[in-house]
Amino acid sequence: MTTERSTFLLDETQIPTQWYNVVPDLPEPPPPPLHPGTHEPVGPDDLAPLFPMALIEQEVSTEQYVDIPGGVLDVYRIWRPSPLVRARRLERLLDTPAKIFFKYEGVSPAGSHKPNTAVPQAWYNHQEGVTRLTTETGAGQWGTSLAFATAQYGMDCEVWQVRSSYDQKPARRTMMEIYGATLHASPSELTEAGRTILAEHPDSPGSLGIAISEAVEAALQRDDTRYALGSVLNHVLLHQTVIGEEALLQMQQAEATPDVIVGCTGGGSNFGGLSFPFIREKLAGRMDPVIRCVEPAAAPSLTRGEYRYDFGDAIGMTPLMKMHTLGHGFIPDPIHAGGLRYHGMAPLVSHVYELGLAEAESIGQLECFEAALMFARTQGIVPAPEPTHAIAAAIREARRCKETGESKTILTALCGHGHLDMASYESYLTGRMQDLDFPEEQLTAALAAVPTL
Amino acid sequence: MTTERSTFLLDETQIPTQWYNVVPDLPEPPPPPLHPGTHEPVGPDDLAPLFPMALIEQEVSTEQYVDIPGGVLDVYRIWRPSPLVRARRLERLLDTPAKIFFKYEGVSPAGSHKPNTAVPQAWYNHQEGVTRLTTETGAGQWGTSLAFATAQYGMDCEVWQVRSSYDQKPARRTMMEIYGATLHASPSELTEAGRTILAEHPDSPGSLGIAISEAVEAALQRDDTRYALGSVLNHVLLHQTVIGEEALLQMQQAEATPDVIVGCTGGGSNFGGLSFPFIREKLAGRMDPVIRCVEPAAAPSLTRGEYRYDFGDAIGMTPLMKMHTLGHGFIPDPIHAGGLRYHGMAPLVSHVYELGLAEAESIGQLECFEAALMFARTQGIVPAPEPTHAIAAAIREARRCKETGESKTILTALCGHGHLDMASYESYLTGRMQDLDFPEEQLTAALAAVPTL
Repeated sequence: MTTERSTFLLDETQIPTQWYNVVPDLPEPPPPPLHPGTHEPVGPDDLAPLFPMALIEQEVSTEQYVDIPGGVLDVYRIWRPSPLVRARRLERLLDTPAKIFFKYEGVSPAGSHKPNTAVPQAWYNHQEGVTRLTTETGAGQWGTSLAFATAQYGMDCEVWQVRSSYDQKPARRTMMEIYGATLHASPSELTEAGRTILAEHPDSPGSLGIAISEAVEAALQRDDTRYALGSVLNHVLLHQTVIGEEALLQMQQAEATPDVIVGCTGGGSNFGGLSFPFIREKLAGRMDPVIRCVEPAAAPSLTRGEYRYDFGDAIGMTPLMKMHTLGHGFIPDPIHAGGLRYHGMAPLVSHVYELGLAEAESIGQLECFEAALMFARTQGIVPAPEPTHAIAAAIREARRCKETGESKTILTALCGHGHLDMASYESYLTGRMQDLDFPEEQLTAALAAVPTL
Repeated sequence: MTTERSTFLLDETQIPTQWYNVVPDLPEPPPPPLHPGTHEPVGPDDLAPLFPMALIEQEVSTEQYVDIPGGVLDVYRIWRPSPLVRARRLERLLDTPAKIFFKYEGVSPAGSHKPNTAVPQAWYNHQEGVTRLTTETGAGQWGTSLAFATAQYGMDCEVWQVRSSYDQKPARRTMMEIYGATLHASPSELTEAGRTILAEHPDSPGSLGIAISEAVEAALQRDDTRYALGSVLNHVLLHQTVIGEEALLQMQQAEATPDVIVGCTGGGSNFGGLSFPFIREKLAGRMDPVIRCVEPAAAPSLTRGEYRYDFGDAIGMTPLMKMHTLGHGFIPDPIHAGGLRYHGMAPLVSHVYELGLAEAESIGQLECFEAALMFARTQGIVPAPEPTHAIAAAIREARRCKETGESKTILTALCGHGHLDMASYESYLTGRMQDLDFPEEQLTAALAAVPTL
């Protein structure tokens, strides 16, 4: 029983008015994406059929700050600023001298951090006259976020959802439809890419790679339509920095400075959003936190992958990006944290890691769900499978503190709730969930198939 | 696009430290519950095998305020104070001069207002040495809340869940298990009540009435065990007044005074929690809002029922309570707002209604889900089926304001999110949901079966 403060709130007038671009503050710039055919750096004209010019400019911006438009702030205000919470009840359970803080992004309408970028992506497209966005989604977190965002500006949204998820996760599908999106199971008959797959495999369960191909093709078919991507790209990570900027203010409120920052990494947008403003502070000598990426043991791109140019999609249609990759043909085991099930890592997170500004560890899903149950039973919130990795890493650190007696301040991001992920918890609670052996041979083969420049 | 404030937050130090008991402020006291055998007023000794003494005292308290224990405030602090939001985006869609405010209770760990009473119920039991609570649940909102609450005090929680929900809504079941509860499909082999039903109907889908019987019987079997109820009773409504007390402070922040307060009513705890502190203000002459109950057209206990003594459960085991009732044998159509599917109304809400302090209207579920979609697409939050009734009523009022040109201030409570209710939305979106004709003959028969005192 305590009357000490645990929740640190900001007023809606304290939402950041600028996104932070880490690129100009880094000791060297990240390597550029390359055209898959010419291997020359990709230019704005290459990207214009897919993205509005404002986002293309943000993708290559060297400005330290980008103003957040009023029309975006107006929608951010629905759920931002998000709370920062000191997990005192979890600390007591662990009997640790460590202080554990988490920034909670599950308060957004879609239930995760994804609307932080979905909203500006929709807004910039709307400003440039685009009336329809296409995208792909796996489990549905990103599709839900884009459906919500497009609804705010009266735009149409078409989502190609991987067939297996479309059939098995009707709740997410319904949530996208509540926001007015049109759903297509992928592969679909609506695109050449989909028809080609279906001709050969009429019962194809689909894949994220195929869904990307369909959404991109559909965007290219019409002048009023563009494509939106939920992670990996620089402009996506830029938009997510509202997480870290708010957390900086809130840690000041709490009169605490992080010694360790842990964030889960799939494509890298949640991690980048939380950590980049703290990397700015670290580079400026104002604090010196250890910054740690936590990835699933089943898709360990930073800890087991190679840092080289590879495709962003599974098929090999996208520009080549310099990133930590398991090989674009690597198919991670079907772990429950679908949002972390990606063969590569955001080029900017990869670059930050190469510069030694962040370290990485991987954790298996059984340890993650055990951590999630401890968290839910003390702090109340049921986490999505993705941030269970961040919680497990925070608990590892807090237990080390108990051993050493150090009272470190740990900061993490709880990037979403798990209300639509109950099937994963059921799998854990009934003992059906497993940690599979890492497929060494598949990794070797996938890395061998990465193009050599 | 606006920069006007929309979200009104309180600091965790501003959580109310007292619950408000409306009883002593009413012009006359509510009629007492009666023993089903003797028809004499029920005394503390009758209730002691089921509830701890502190709650029995609250049930009959005539004190205006009851202090909230520190051990309860410590858990309330996980999610309270909850936000008050001005629905500016919905107002713009409706093009109404009305101001619409909603108090959002979906931020609690269980996703509804129910933990406001689950936590103190668990705490008082814990204080009196009880180590195990039993309860019933239908869809699972209440069971989830009690599972969360008991976890905070290291108590066991056993939930009898209606078999049909247990089988059809695995997500809620999993959420209760995440919090550590033990689930039993009801009817079960664990109680005499369950075994009797199963002997006759081995495939019984169960009912709330049967589940109550089982949970009560299980509580009576062991000295370390008591029973907990999620609505209807005076002490439950008392605990829920934190909603209205916070809303009063937040309306002051917003510099607004409600002209109309609408709340959805099932058992009555959400409505009572929101409205009772405003009834105090009304009776003291400090404001004069219209206060309106909104009930589903399929279970209209206030607008179609009779005010008389009836049983609280379907079987006829509980004390007789003076309330608006459709008859304890009335079985409402299987509408999606399961939490409003109750034959009676809280005695205290019924009494307030009889005194003319509140009015009532009923709304069909199709209008409610249409309202919910408008709400979700503007304000982002997907409401639970229950508060869609409150939203529909708020929209009705806002549309009347558009016609008359009045800029009334409307206050309602969004008592929970719909993340675990996607199947209901799917039913609406696919056109399968219906408004059924009200079963007049069933009502007549059910009212005829109510005991005459």
